[in-house]
Amino acid sequence: MNVEFNKAQISELEKRYRVQLINSLSGFKSANLVGTKSADGVTNLAIVSSVFHLGASPALMGMIIRPDSVPRDTLTNIKETGVYTLNHVGRSFYKQAHQTSARYKPNQSEFNEVGLDEYYIDDFYAPFVSQSALKIGLNVQQITPLSINNTVLVIGEIIYIAIEENALCEDGYVDIEALDTVALSGLDSYHTSARIARLSYAKVNEPITELAIGKKGKTA
Amino acid sequence: MNVEFNKAQISELEKRYRVQLINSLSGFKSANLVGTKSADGVTNLAIVSSVFHLGASPALMGMIIRPDSVPRDTLTNIKETGVYTLNHVGRSFYKQAHQTSARYKPNQSEFNEVGLDEYYIDDFYAPFVSQSALKIGLNVQQITPLSINNTVLVIGEIIYIAIEENALCEDGYVDIEALDTVALSGLDSYHTSARIARLSYAKVNEPITELAIGKKGKTA
Repeated sequence: MNVEFNKAQISELEKRYRVQLINSLSGFKSANLVGTKSADGVTNLAIVSSVFHLGASPALMGMIIRPDSVPRDTLTNIKETGVYTLNHVGRSFYKQAHQTSARYKPNQSEFNEVGLDEYYIDDFYAPFVSQSALKIGLNVQQITPLSINNTVLVIGEIIYIAIEENALCEDGYVDIEALDTVALSGLDSYHTSARIARLSYAKVNEPITELAIGKKGKTA
Repeated sequence: MNVEFNKAQISELEKRYRVQLINSLSGFKSANLVGTKSADGVTNLAIVSSVFHLGASPALMGMIIRPDSVPRDTLTNIKETGVYTLNHVGRSFYKQAHQTSARYKPNQSEFNEVGLDEYYIDDFYAPFVSQSALKIGLNVQQITPLSINNTVLVIGEIIYIAIEENALCEDGYVDIEALDTVALSGLDSYHTSARIARLSYAKVNEPITELAIGKKGKTA
């Protein structure tokens, strides 16, 4: 039995109900912490569920920022400094990650407020999250306001990756399930995962096969 | 123990290895089938992992299309007809969904080729996937080429939603886990999920609490 909503019914929904409903529709979402630091040295950390793969060569990621909602400082810091980090949210600290969405003041660091640790690499200004098992450093490439609803598309080039060794497979696939990376649904639901299978590259007139997860360890 | 890659090392990776690695970094991804129909009536179905929430009012979703890769017909059909559907990939048909990425000819319908059924609603040209427990109908709003790597950002307004009733919670959250919606990681790994918790709205100086999943059934 289906519940249906048409365009008029969607527009008439009570605001908070509509926000919960529409946020649930895209499917499972990535859970990442964006790490930045202002030009005058205040670090910032914000959970985002809108990070997506954009391309492998060059290695690009996109994310959507809502200027009116919590991660205001994130966008300011990226514009000021040109760099940011993305850090997978793990099961052991998902509540601290969620807490970064509270409205802390610009002079407060979410790292301190929620109890996560800053981690730095040489010659890169933005802070990583020490607790995260998959850390990515990015140089911002484009900041594009989307006129349709005043969100902002931020595109960055990946210039640094750190992954726990036991999750990297011989073909380059990262077993993010082994990292305890969580998934999000809706605004506030956190999930662990269980692999069904890796599937072979699909070809016309050839049956799909299930792939082995692959040997672990850096081989390229 | 971490494996690290810097910018030079990333650019020197063997191509297929780099594609697997970079596609793994964003975290868990949504798994949706895009349904379209050409102006002369050939239906098309393509799996996409790049669908993301863009806004609730108006209700907007974004997705990234790679013109050079498989879903060529998808973009052509959206441009020609202005409409498309998104359909959550469920555990019971994830292999058929994956098979849609094979390079079928423009006059072949992936629905027929992989064995999924078309479903239509009145006055909406694009086909839904009958087997999907969460179906979304969209009117295209913007098609924006991203000059940085020749991908295309497609933004659509949600004008129809159908959800299995037992998954819709009283606050508007959709329990997509109850729908057996799968998540993707990397290029080819499919996952089911297990909820850790729903968390309360984060506030400064207030502890986060775990929320009940909520009563099911349409209440707004």
